[in-house]
Amino acid sequence: MRALVTGGAGFIGSTLVGALIARGDEVLVVDDLSAGKRENLDPAARLIEADIRDTGRMAVIAAEFRPDAVYHLAAQIDVRTSMADPLHDASVNVLGTLSVLQAARDAGARAVVVCSTGGAIYGDGAPLPTTEDEPPEPESPYGLGKLAAERYTRFFVRAHGLPALVLRFANVYGPRQHPAGGAGVVSLFCDRARTGGRPTVFGDGGQTRDFLYVGDVARAALASADRLAAGELAGEVFNVGTGTESTITELAATIGRVAGLDADAFAPEFEAARPGELRRSCLDPSRGLAALGLPAPTTLAVGLAATWTWHTRRS
Amino acid sequence: MRALVTGGAGFIGSTLVGALIARGDEVLVVDDLSAGKRENLDPAARLIEADIRDTGRMAVIAAEFRPDAVYHLAAQIDVRTSMADPLHDASVNVLGTLSVLQAARDAGARAVVVCSTGGAIYGDGAPLPTTEDEPPEPESPYGLGKLAAERYTRFFVRAHGLPALVLRFANVYGPRQHPAGGAGVVSLFCDRARTGGRPTVFGDGGQTRDFLYVGDVARAALASADRLAAGELAGEVFNVGTGTESTITELAATIGRVAGLDADAFAPEFEAARPGELRRSCLDPSRGLAALGLPAPTTLAVGLAATWTWHTRRS
Repeated sequence: MRALVTGGAGFIGSTLVGALIARGDEVLVVDDLSAGKRENLDPAARLIEADIRDTGRMAVIAAEFRPDAVYHLAAQIDVRTSMADPLHDASVNVLGTLSVLQAARDAGARAVVVCSTGGAIYGDGAPLPTTEDEPPEPESPYGLGKLAAERYTRFFVRAHGLPALVLRFANVYGPRQHPAGGAGVVSLFCDRARTGGRPTVFGDGGQTRDFLYVGDVARAALASADRLAAGELAGEVFNVGTGTESTITELAATIGRVAGLDADAFAPEFEAARPGELRRSCLDPSRGLAALGLPAPTTLAVGLAATWTWHTRRS
Repeated sequence: MRALVTGGAGFIGSTLVGALIARGDEVLVVDDLSAGKRENLDPAARLIEADIRDTGRMAVIAAEFRPDAVYHLAAQIDVRTSMADPLHDASVNVLGTLSVLQAARDAGARAVVVCSTGGAIYGDGAPLPTTEDEPPEPESPYGLGKLAAERYTRFFVRAHGLPALVLRFANVYGPRQHPAGGAGVVSLFCDRARTGGRPTVFGDGGQTRDFLYVGDVARAALASADRLAAGELAGEVFNVGTGTESTITELAATIGRVAGLDADAFAPEFEAARPGELRRSCLDPSRGLAALGLPAPTTLAVGLAATWTWHTRRS
């Protein structure tokens, strides 16, 4: 299959690109390298440096490459950035998604996988683990933009028969997630462990997240494209998570153990809670696992071991 | 009060501008004249020709004018245009709204009235007349963009304390609504009556709408700004409609009568139904009428008489 991956030079995107190349797909990455890095990419993948909001360029790129599958991962990913500059967030995540959907439709893609968020789209009062039936109540502009992008995606399915579906990711972690830029507590804690520091915990550390290994994300995206190309699942929305809640304090302790550190040496430093942070978050992945025929998610211990190995090899 | 009206040279906007000037407000209109017309405007209103998406310019305009109230009416208003070019629709209606919200916040506005749609935001299966408690299920990109703009507005209320509220309009008609560009069945039918033609009805004519006189819209907007400036109603969403359903066939007959035409001479010409058109639409305006202290809406007969008078004076 020919696969077009937007944001393919980023953390999640480059993992997906690796999986696509491993199974023999021809991969074209579109990334503006605002966050992604060329060195993340498998050398077998072709990279075009472009902004997804450039609709004319996206149309030409897609028309020339004629992708079977489009994986749309390019995004503004920081909730706090979206609070400070919702217009920029909406420009990338809403208009950018529309640009990708149009290009995919016009190029005749047989599968379009649109990546969204489970962590920021359900409200703080949603039952846990949260299923897709729970009505979205995003609180941040990031969540609002992702919800709008989801709804535009489903419009393209209804109005144009675009074979697209939406995946709502939990808190994704894994190799190549860079601690710079506040992108993920797992990466930040691993970096602290590697450099002899201690984890900083905001609030009491009892807030929970659903930590999802990036390999599981790639697996879900591949399975989604395969099902869509087979004429199934268009218009669906699936959570991609583990169904397991972990507190931030537990996460810190597990990373300390994986890194072989003494519990006291890696004891958290507590700081004031950050306003607007969700207290608890956990996705029920059952529907997607069943529909996509996926195995049980990677456990935190196994995923963290792989992640820690990557951190120890960083220069 | 100093009032900034985006889209103030348009049909609804210029009606609101007239009402603001009539009560002695100082009015600045921002309009790119893509649909609005300079000649619509009361000469006492100042006009700046600008695109609301130009965030830098909007910020300067608002900072210099220091509006007490911002009325945000600038929008891409055509559902069919939104189907053909959802990206353009989202650019104007989503990013444009964010630009206006930011400018209003930074300029310290005491009241921000954001105009949305009742006709395109509820789904086809919503109970009639539809209250604000009905969950939005927009089917067109126009409705999706308006819903996103509403949610961003409420984010600005929550996160920044912006004194803003949302008004969801029914199908607005009245003087200065131009028949060109498919903008409103009332205007189209009046134009046919004026030029000796017959009304074109798509489908069986039994589809219903809630026809709202533009004067009622202006009244609701003024009352909203006054309440917001008094520290009330921030974050609210109100329907603005009549609560009365009229079929398209009834509308045609009423316009024929108001125009003094023989029923046979103004009998509808039927054409194929347009795909995706809502079958029935009617808003329950009770909550807004009570909260804003407004009188009963203008009846269709009275509103159409005023509208017809305007049409007969067109050159």
